[in-house]
Amino acid sequence: MKIIIDAMGGDNAPRSNVEGALSAVRELGVECVLVGQGDEILAALRELGCDAPPPGLEIVHASEVVTMEDNAATAFKEKKDSSLTVGLNLVKDGKGDAFVSAGSTGALLSAATLVTKRIRGIRRAAMAPQLPVPGGAILIDAGATAECTPEYLLQFAFMGSYYAEHIQGKPQPRVGLLNIGAEEGKGTALQKETHALLKKADEEGRIHFTGNVEAREAVLGAVDVIVADGYSGNIFLKTLEGTALFLAGEMKKMFKKNLLTKLSAVMVSSGIRDFKKLLDSREVGGTALLGISRPVIKAHGSSDGYAIRNAIAQAAKFASSGIIESVTENIEYMRLPVMKEEAEKI
Amino acid sequence: MKIIIDAMGGDNAPRSNVEGALSAVRELGVECVLVGQGDEILAALRELGCDAPPPGLEIVHASEVVTMEDNAATAFKEKKDSSLTVGLNLVKDGKGDAFVSAGSTGALLSAATLVTKRIRGIRRAAMAPQLPVPGGAILIDAGATAECTPEYLLQFAFMGSYYAEHIQGKPQPRVGLLNIGAEEGKGTALQKETHALLKKADEEGRIHFTGNVEAREAVLGAVDVIVADGYSGNIFLKTLEGTALFLAGEMKKMFKKNLLTKLSAVMVSSGIRDFKKLLDSREVGGTALLGISRPVIKAHGSSDGYAIRNAIAQAAKFASSGIIESVTENIEYMRLPVMKEEAEKI
Repeated sequence: MKIIIDAMGGDNAPRSNVEGALSAVRELGVECVLVGQGDEILAALRELGCDAPPPGLEIVHASEVVTMEDNAATAFKEKKDSSLTVGLNLVKDGKGDAFVSAGSTGALLSAATLVTKRIRGIRRAAMAPQLPVPGGAILIDAGATAECTPEYLLQFAFMGSYYAEHIQGKPQPRVGLLNIGAEEGKGTALQKETHALLKKADEEGRIHFTGNVEAREAVLGAVDVIVADGYSGNIFLKTLEGTALFLAGEMKKMFKKNLLTKLSAVMVSSGIRDFKKLLDSREVGGTALLGISRPVIKAHGSSDGYAIRNAIAQAAKFASSGIIESVTENIEYMRLPVMKEEAEKI
Repeated sequence: MKIIIDAMGGDNAPRSNVEGALSAVRELGVECVLVGQGDEILAALRELGCDAPPPGLEIVHASEVVTMEDNAATAFKEKKDSSLTVGLNLVKDGKGDAFVSAGSTGALLSAATLVTKRIRGIRRAAMAPQLPVPGGAILIDAGATAECTPEYLLQFAFMGSYYAEHIQGKPQPRVGLLNIGAEEGKGTALQKETHALLKKADEEGRIHFTGNVEAREAVLGAVDVIVADGYSGNIFLKTLEGTALFLAGEMKKMFKKNLLTKLSAVMVSSGIRDFKKLLDSREVGGTALLGISRPVIKAHGSSDGYAIRNAIAQAAKFASSGIIESVTENIEYMRLPVMKEEAEKI
């Protein structure tokens, strides 16, 4: 198993990427390829006590760096010798099994779609983060495709279900459609049409669709896979993050009030640690980009070495999971019949 | 000031409605009319120590009750002698200044729209709850109108701004469009077109539009008015509620672990009280229904007497705020020019 890493992506690049790759090579038994500016990668290695890359760790030089200032949609072709483009080409050409980047989400999404390409028949890629909710449900899509059709959502449901089954080890994952009411017929035209498609897929035994799921219940762990268009999925995810951040801040204030409350914090310190761990995105590692023909993981921009290590572990799991094969084999059930007139145009 | 109350609406009806009305009459100096089954209201009054309604409290008998089993869209006309329909007609006929109900949201929304009617020129009604976030931002729409056009959202922005100004006392409230990125051009076609309309309204000095606001920043109090279509607004609200509920539960677990942690809870008890108060929907009272020609407040279904009292206070404030007058005076700036062909059809 060989994981290609965008050494130059993220707020703490290349240091945290190098650190994460080192840990992965040492602890997880995977090979890693760090793609980026060779001298900077070597300097980071030296800082971490390695004069040369240890066995299992390769460096591939790429002279350019994609930054947040670049146009996300075109960065990968304007900077052909960037760690992003070079790394994805390595994966595309079979010189690695998966790609991990903590760089710009938009640039990674465009590059993955256009360099590595989507799985044949998949209309749009989707971001599928695991959420810090009971049971660790995944959300698909969290913002890759803002505007969706029912067919996109049908495909997201299948891909999310395969992810929960093959990577999270959940047999028969419960798939819910994010909606503003549990009853059939709720929501906009998009949800109503999607509901019918998911119900049919459930009746045919292809996914386990449990119906609409309200945001409140989804947060409390009612389903394993939350299907949403990228716009509302992103609203859902960011509201969850913002609320957790806000309440964690309020809790901190509560404990910092005076000597007595500070003492109280010491007395529940193990609980506070669990609470922090619950909200710590580093534990999961990163977000899978589903629908791409090769495994791609987006690590958080602020990832440290530990988060990158976990993203590499996730990428390795993804690469050996068979999700992409499952999608390819079942693609005919994930597509709507093309209208006659449209078919004639093709 | 006379507030009409749906005595039969909500999980704790009529008791909590009667209790709330009693408190309002005694503490807030407003008159209240309890509409519903006379004998039940009198029984509740007796339970609360009143053999007869005190001065300022009237009872209007209505023999029917709208329940959660009724069809929300048609309940008000199928049950013409319900507390909902009778109460709204009283407000419509000028026999009261505002209406408060803790009953079914859907039934109230249909009834308010069709009995009391919308303000002339307003396309759709919206629910505008005050959120438990820093600064108490309001969200408009929280789910009354799932599918929206840019014009609806323009109207929501104006109405939300008037609410924040006149009821919450915020001069020049910051209006933000809920979106998946701060930059112009983010989101779906709906957000893009709405952004242009809100920007124009800002340039003309009619509202203070601060641009797109991401869900995460909205939760942290970045704006005073969060404009959203009912579908994504509801996702936002329910995610916020669900996350708060989940984390409050985790915190409770943390403190209940053993004797030491329980002692610790006692030491931060004032902080825990503040924390609970922060998340307590009873403090605000209810959610304003904006766009209706008369003030209508939806109280939470699980309201107790204290929550109903606060909803009545909010209704009184709404009735004397001049919001409906402001909307009426400025309606021409809140409408899009009708296309020529469409105009010919009218």
